[in-house]
Amino acid sequence: MINIDPLQTGGKLTPEARAALIQWGDGYSVCDFCPGTLDEIRTPPIHDFIHDALPEFLGIDHARVTNGAREAKFAIMHALASRNDSIVLDGNAHYTSFVAAERAGLKIKTVPNSGYPDYKVDPEGYATIIEEIEKEIGKLPTLALLTYPDGNYGNIVDAKRVASICHEYDIPFLLNGAYAVGRMPISARKVGADFIVGSGHKSMASSGPVGVLGVTDEHKDKIFEKSKFFRAKEVELLGCTARGATIMTLMASFPSVVERLKHWEEEVRKAQWFSAQLEDLGLKQLGDRPHKHDLMFFEAPNLYEISQRAKDGRYFLYKELKDRNIHGIKPGLTKSFKLSTFGLSRSELKVVIDAFDDIIKNMLRHCYSPD
Amino acid sequence: MINIDPLQTGGKLTPEARAALIQWGDGYSVCDFCPGTLDEIRTPPIHDFIHDALPEFLGIDHARVTNGAREAKFAIMHALASRNDSIVLDGNAHYTSFVAAERAGLKIKTVPNSGYPDYKVDPEGYATIIEEIEKEIGKLPTLALLTYPDGNYGNIVDAKRVASICHEYDIPFLLNGAYAVGRMPISARKVGADFIVGSGHKSMASSGPVGVLGVTDEHKDKIFEKSKFFRAKEVELLGCTARGATIMTLMASFPSVVERLKHWEEEVRKAQWFSAQLEDLGLKQLGDRPHKHDLMFFEAPNLYEISQRAKDGRYFLYKELKDRNIHGIKPGLTKSFKLSTFGLSRSELKVVIDAFDDIIKNMLRHCYSPD
Repeated sequence: MINIDPLQTGGKLTPEARAALIQWGDGYSVCDFCPGTLDEIRTPPIHDFIHDALPEFLGIDHARVTNGAREAKFAIMHALASRNDSIVLDGNAHYTSFVAAERAGLKIKTVPNSGYPDYKVDPEGYATIIEEIEKEIGKLPTLALLTYPDGNYGNIVDAKRVASICHEYDIPFLLNGAYAVGRMPISARKVGADFIVGSGHKSMASSGPVGVLGVTDEHKDKIFEKSKFFRAKEVELLGCTARGATIMTLMASFPSVVERLKHWEEEVRKAQWFSAQLEDLGLKQLGDRPHKHDLMFFEAPNLYEISQRAKDGRYFLYKELKDRNIHGIKPGLTKSFKLSTFGLSRSELKVVIDAFDDIIKNMLRHCYSPD
Repeated sequence: MINIDPLQTGGKLTPEARAALIQWGDGYSVCDFCPGTLDEIRTPPIHDFIHDALPEFLGIDHARVTNGAREAKFAIMHALASRNDSIVLDGNAHYTSFVAAERAGLKIKTVPNSGYPDYKVDPEGYATIIEEIEKEIGKLPTLALLTYPDGNYGNIVDAKRVASICHEYDIPFLLNGAYAVGRMPISARKVGADFIVGSGHKSMASSGPVGVLGVTDEHKDKIFEKSKFFRAKEVELLGCTARGATIMTLMASFPSVVERLKHWEEEVRKAQWFSAQLEDLGLKQLGDRPHKHDLMFFEAPNLYEISQRAKDGRYFLYKELKDRNIHGIKPGLTKSFKLSTFGLSRSELKVVIDAFDDIIKNMLRHCYSPD
């Protein structure tokens, strides 16, 4: 099976993670030598991973492992939010950023994207929205978030510029790197982000749910506040988070994940080449052009037209690809869909390109044949 | 290895769960046919598990799978809490109940236990504390919680009586069954609980973190409120929770878990027999007597005395047991410790009893020998 599902290309386990999954599968298996909290466990070496390797990897002062990127975002928002607070999201934000903000009681305002066909988010839009919020609510937003890249178009916004605008207004800036951390080099410090989150099962070759959370020294005390009742336990993490095989697969894959970032430029070249090949077949890639990420969104008017006449209707594309051992385009989609080329070789991607070519030619012949 | 760690005896994977772990290990592997939320996925049959099997099992109207019992408790508390709200906990409540309430901004007051040696919580104490809270804060508590059984002494409180007291004051009642659900028969309906939570990795033979949450029809809309922005997504669950191998191991073990509840009476008899045997060796079991659960707390003055003279000091017991392939008493503990007999055969428990006997006799001879 060649898998081009954007949700899955970065979450496929490494052989080391598969072994960890089996070794640490039982409930609470990591807790044999727990001195009070997950991040302090030294056998297995969770402490060193969380306190040394992970902050260095994220380019930030402090890190924790969470039950996912969304849980990390909620922890930050919940820790910072007071009554009548608000947040700025980019117009391409993932639904979990909205839902986390909603759960934390934050008013939400978005920096709109430029619409079809590029869906670009302009960093300068953050200043506009920040000022609008101040006018409407009477106080500045509590937090600003940028999705880097977003999960629909794979667009990469100038995060450094967003950070600097936010900091002009003294607003903490959260970088949602669910599709970046573990796929491409990224440093919260270089960007100027106060917080960074990543997803283990989306982009760090881990068994989910598991995520990572990075916090600057400035915000550490608020996010990692300890319980009044149990001094070792961090309130926003409910004491411990990924207490099982999930964190062990994250740790087991980590060396490979660090290694694979070195090949990011080739990943981008591969995505651009793949995009050009599909466009030659009559599809159109939306979002950033040239594209800077493996996650891409395509419009396919020709496939849509075929679906109107195909026996299996809008499911034809899913079935045709499945017959060719290609997985990852959502069943029922033909008019537009996203996919990812991450971690696949050019020869595997050639199989995908040839499959699209073959499907389009065959189906057109079949649908328009005189019988 | 014979494992008597209370955290681990109920979380050991079944062969079916081991297979599921391997099959569904990759990130987001369950999401291939997602119609919008985790609980609606029909392939694999997550929908039927969450909407049919689980509510029936918990004896409640509605259920969800969460990232753990603590996350389930927090979701309930956070959904119900307003400013200046409070919660009643039993004096034996798990630390995560305190931390979840703290995170939800609830004032906490506890129904004290009776202290050494029984540590009993009197259901009537709930009325006292409820009235004290009303006097102090000017309004009734938002929620009452009972830990059933608690994780220190394995004490079973008359939960039905607690429920009826809470309902006299019109206060919703949450049963924390992290050590009950999956080990012993329990029905929220029979108890009269409005909410029930359980732990997959603690007591349902699952790879964690994963938990279950049961809610009555009356409270459904508040706990499962949908997002204003994404109508399919439940806010308190941040859209989806256990989106991976964790839920698949829970589902894979479920038939065995349902089956093992039938042997609960024998589990209790075994625990009582084991307790009597250890008491014959000079240990003393605290908490409920006769005991009604596999989780037990022992005082061991003789082992403590030995530790004062042993070469390895307070680590001697851990090492001696480890040499005999017995695992689960925390390294460094001798004076008092908890353990669990769940799922172990009488012959395995006999090995544990004989080990204690042997260790006590050998060490006494060794420590007090003339050389």
